[in-house]
Amino acid sequence: MNAKPVIAALSDFPVITTLPIQWGDQDAFGHVNSTVPIRWFESSRVEYLLEIGMNVEAPESGIGPILASISSHYRLQLTYPDTVHIGARVAKVGRSSIDIQHAVFSEAQQAVAVEGDSVVVAYDYASQRPARVPDAIRAAIDRLQGGLGPS
Amino acid sequence: MNAKPVIAALSDFPVITTLPIQWGDQDAFGHVNSTVPIRWFESSRVEYLLEIGMNVEAPESGIGPILASISSHYRLQLTYPDTVHIGARVAKVGRSSIDIQHAVFSEAQQAVAVEGDSVVVAYDYASQRPARVPDAIRAAIDRLQGGLGPS
Amino acid sequence: MNAKPVIAALSDFPVITTLPIQWGDQDAFGHVNSTVPIRWFESSRVEYLLEIGMNVEAPESGIGPILASISSHYRLQLTYPDTVHIGARVAKVGRSSIDIQHAVFSEAQQAVAVEGDSVVVAYDYASQRPARVPDAIRAAIDRLQGGLGPS
Amino acid sequence: MNAKPVIAALSDFPVITTLPIQWGDQDAFGHVNSTVPIRWFESSRVEYLLEIGMNVEAPESGIGPILASISSHYRLQLTYPDTVHIGARVAKVGRSSIDIQHAVFSEAQQAVAVEGDSVVVAYDYASQRPARVPDAIRAAIDRLQGGLGPS
Repeated sequence: MNAKPVIAALSDFPVITTLPIQWGDQDAFGHVNSTVPIRWFESSRVEYLLEIGMNVEAPESGIGPILASISSHYRLQLTYPDTVHIGARVAKVGRSSIDIQHAVFSEAQQAVAVEGDSVVVAYDYASQRPARVPDAIRAAIDRLQGGLGPS
Repeated sequence: MNAKPVIAALSDFPVITTLPIQWGDQDAFGHVNSTVPIRWFESSRVEYLLEIGMNVEAPESGIGPILASISSHYRLQLTYPDTVHIGARVAKVGRSSIDIQHAVFSEAQQAVAVEGDSVVVAYDYASQRPARVPDAIRAAIDRLQGGLGPS
Repeated sequence: MNAKPVIAALSDFPVITTLPIQWGDQDAFGHVNSTVPIRWFESSRVEYLLEIGMNVEAPESGIGPILASISSHYRLQLTYPDTVHIGARVAKVGRSSIDIQHAVFSEAQQAVAVEGDSVVVAYDYASQRPARVPDAIRAAIDRLQGGLGPS
Repeated sequence: MNAKPVIAALSDFPVITTLPIQWGDQDAFGHVNSTVPIRWFESSRVEYLLEIGMNVEAPESGIGPILASISSHYRLQLTYPDTVHIGARVAKVGRSSIDIQHAVFSEAQQAVAVEGDSVVVAYDYASQRPARVPDAIRAAIDRLQGGLGPS
């Protein structure tokens, strides 16, 4: 996964996940099914969260992430074979939420094929309530993105 | 699928798809994974489109649906075993787009656990361009929903 | 799930799981993808294990199931829409293994479309070693199947 | 995908597909779910078939592959993050069938974690009957594997 090609369209995304399209990602339309980019966003989100030192577990105590919402815009039809590069960047940090943007770049089409958003909430699994995003996480996002200005 | 229970929370949804949660729908958090409701929305969308006489294929000629975007809001954590009822209703018909809303009702929790939207575009697969939603489809939506007022 | 139709082809299977085929279960061939019956076998296996009082978790201590192998024979091509009934029965109980057979009956084709086997091993997750299938589980299988003659 | 590492355990496999494990490949046990290697076998099988010049479509006329059966033996539990290398080799060519063996090598564990078999049948989709494996395909397998001795 190192020595990734430089992709201009993803230059604003500090974390890039690279995945091949599998034949079985296609549905009866002969295109990549709409659930597949949602899985890619998850992989991208997990890689970003690990990068900033966040748990990707539902811990018995302490704070873990929980997914509040996602959205996905399908710009281009994807097919097998191809390789996609999924960018992740934090657009906004709220009291307890982190908004992550994703862009999926298709090597075969040399264009962004899917765009999406994930809203992750810092969650206290013991009390089952949202928690403030810890300062260490805010600082790690700042370091990774070069000054996002967390709220 | 007949003799479905009456679910007050879904009374505004003319099409309801009923599916059991499978054990394998759960991920490492022990909850239903976020991609699974996206598959449910697809099943719900397909059932609605069949109900109004729309193709659910990518025809060589003629008009078929293409998915432009989806969103999903995760309100409650779902687990196995449970049965969900997924409602679909059209919120708006544009020139070439149909906005479909979904609500997922959990039997075990007796509450709406996930809400979402799908935007489907009427697509001319021969010319690879959006097409006007046919009048017959608009009329079928009207009949099914009792006067949505398509634009 | 009660009041299931009597399916002669599954009369030897004490546990029957009923699932609709979803549109998205189909792949680019326009048939149900080969991974989907493997998920059905899992659902069927879990339902059988719960029926005989076995954990379907990886417990920190105590014995849980682990899947050693599966096989699947694809007899007929399945398509959406359809409803399948997946039968599970224990063929053999060894020292630490339970062999489960599956048959998938298609309502649309009125025939068994897929057959398969799962080998489940009773596993001591604390010591990370296979364990003897507990007597209570053996007795429960006997009761459910009416005298299989566990070894 | 070029410049793959040399993996001694896969030296008998002429086609090797490399895939990262995604977080979402894990199930509620916290291990890669048993359906996931079945998808890997599919990807591996498709790559092998493309390599020998076989269609991976269900053609309206002419011969395409159809999957008759699969089996999978789960040797080691896999977890995220990891990268797997899936080897494919033809073990036997019959009149109308091709037996393909798979081995999944885990980078993290430096061992084969899953082994499996796929039986692919050359299928005449027009007549809906098995067909003889074409001579060109037999010759391509021979070239790729260095003399398998097709039957």
